[in-house]
Amino acid sequence: MSDIIKTDALIVGAGPVGLFAVFELGLLDVRAHLVDILSMSGGQCAELYPEKPIYDIPGFPIVTGQALVNNLVEQAKPFSPQFHHGEMVAALEPIGSATAPLFRVVTDAGTEFEAKTVLIAAGGGSFQPKKPPIAGIEAYESKSVFYAVRKMEQFAGKRVLIVGGGDSALDWALNLHPVASRVTVLHRRDAFRAAPHSVNAMRGHVAAGTMDLAIGQVAALQGADGQLAGVTVKHEDGTATEVACDVMLPFFGLTMKLGPVADWGLNLHENLVPVDTERFETSVPGIFAIGDINTYPGKLKLILSGFHEAALAAQRVHRYVFPEKRLTFQYTTSSTSLQKKLGVG
Amino acid sequence: MSDIIKTDALIVGAGPVGLFAVFELGLLDVRAHLVDILSMSGGQCAELYPEKPIYDIPGFPIVTGQALVNNLVEQAKPFSPQFHHGEMVAALEPIGSATAPLFRVVTDAGTEFEAKTVLIAAGGGSFQPKKPPIAGIEAYESKSVFYAVRKMEQFAGKRVLIVGGGDSALDWALNLHPVASRVTVLHRRDAFRAAPHSVNAMRGHVAAGTMDLAIGQVAALQGADGQLAGVTVKHEDGTATEVACDVMLPFFGLTMKLGPVADWGLNLHENLVPVDTERFETSVPGIFAIGDINTYPGKLKLILSGFHEAALAAQRVHRYVFPEKRLTFQYTTSSTSLQKKLGVG
Repeated sequence: MSDIIKTDALIVGAGPVGLFAVFELGLLDVRAHLVDILSMSGGQCAELYPEKPIYDIPGFPIVTGQALVNNLVEQAKPFSPQFHHGEMVAALEPIGSATAPLFRVVTDAGTEFEAKTVLIAAGGGSFQPKKPPIAGIEAYESKSVFYAVRKMEQFAGKRVLIVGGGDSALDWALNLHPVASRVTVLHRRDAFRAAPHSVNAMRGHVAAGTMDLAIGQVAALQGADGQLAGVTVKHEDGTATEVACDVMLPFFGLTMKLGPVADWGLNLHENLVPVDTERFETSVPGIFAIGDINTYPGKLKLILSGFHEAALAAQRVHRYVFPEKRLTFQYTTSSTSLQKKLGVG
Repeated sequence: MSDIIKTDALIVGAGPVGLFAVFELGLLDVRAHLVDILSMSGGQCAELYPEKPIYDIPGFPIVTGQALVNNLVEQAKPFSPQFHHGEMVAALEPIGSATAPLFRVVTDAGTEFEAKTVLIAAGGGSFQPKKPPIAGIEAYESKSVFYAVRKMEQFAGKRVLIVGGGDSALDWALNLHPVASRVTVLHRRDAFRAAPHSVNAMRGHVAAGTMDLAIGQVAALQGADGQLAGVTVKHEDGTATEVACDVMLPFFGLTMKLGPVADWGLNLHENLVPVDTERFETSVPGIFAIGDINTYPGKLKLILSGFHEAALAAQRVHRYVFPEKRLTFQYTTSSTSLQKKLGVG
């Protein structure tokens, strides 16, 4: 039995906006825990473009994603945020009232929280692979159907069917060629979006008889207990053939998924969470949405806007956490009380 | 006859928010001129607390007002903003239509603009001295009544009446003591808010007979053609005396005045300019208000919020300036077209 962690605020997402929310909440004496699916803080900034320069953060003519994240981590430090990296919020259940909200939150790692407020700062959600529409495919997923290659050795000596015509499909066909017992590339037409040199290399292997190319679409899967034996491929002329394989790797691209946020009973609009521009609160009192995941008239998906939204949301969070306290607006430049909290007073 | 300067955007106020507006407008190909009453950029940040640390700018665990301003000036540079320092917008007249706004703007230095849009980023307005309620005082202002000391030599050999009991009043009484032929301090009661050592120094001069102290309030001014000859001082017991003087310096503190913005036909609320949170536009199409001078539900007077407001306002400005162009949202991190504008592509 794990202990339940009680917190004023649970921040979902430790990207730039989640990190700055720690700071804004901290100024108001609100302490926060953060949950992030990634193994480190920084979200897309650190994961997708750590070394790429960003030019539109106010006061930084140029800054890399990683440097910005490092600065924000440093800025949040006086408020000792508690990070839960590599975990995804799996369930959220309101157990309080509209005026005194309380949420029971559980991650997929089993960590349990009781949070007075929840701030969703999950950016675009999670990057997830697009799945092909094949009946019964779920039964094979993670057993003999994979949407990503974590370890190549896993496919050593296997008959691998790679589905798709883009760079991921062709790159993995070529990379697994020396490892697998046989690689078959299946694409719906005999033309490929992948880089020409990859396409040429693949066609070379096919011409040499060391790789197979099939044109068509997967219509059905054969196998048992999650273990593929082969697939039925339907061709454009209406005929069908069987392709024997041990493993199927469909590469149909990535899609940004809202993920579990969709199941929390919030009003949604096109996979975004509508909020008001006064408090950035969702349709559920006590749950806020800040940064790229929210929407309102005029919304721009700028890191800067997420920062502003965090500052305004913090004011309302304070009222839920300390209903008896009156909040006086203060500046860090002049308030000795704020400076004391920051450890500089 | 001065040439009329034609501009896409005229920004009133070259503080942090006005400077960042240059950047956000520039990304959208909108060029800007800035007018500021101060002799340099940076607004309150540079004028009131250049060396004081600020802690709540996102990504800066600590930054001084001047350093932040320097960074923002640097960030705006690729868009060659044109500064008009030491000038105040004196008049603004709409000469376009609601769908195609155009404004004729004139400064107190006579500079004339024709601007497609106006962004008011004037912070708290202008710091202006509080004036004593004395009938006919306007006729003497800037001739023999002054609310600030620009050059001490101006008062050499003069009989100076200093009115007030705070630090400014006492400091100037002491500073002008060696310069003026005679200094009289007038305060409504024989107790002073000024620093004790200043009060003691003043009382020392009075005891030595080299300075005068009078208790009471100015009831009337005597003089002609703007030149003071003396004032009537009313005492608490109902009696009155005359104090001869050449110059009067009332120090009644400063007040933040909206200034000429009040005369531009905008809806106002408690000296603030109400705006919507989608475009941060005022009641006059084509005139925007960003930063501390605006108000909307949830408004916090944070520099950060002004930055966000500048970004959103810029989108709408773009539509007025380039009505025929469709605006595609782009990121500086990934857009080569934006990077080219920034001179880094």
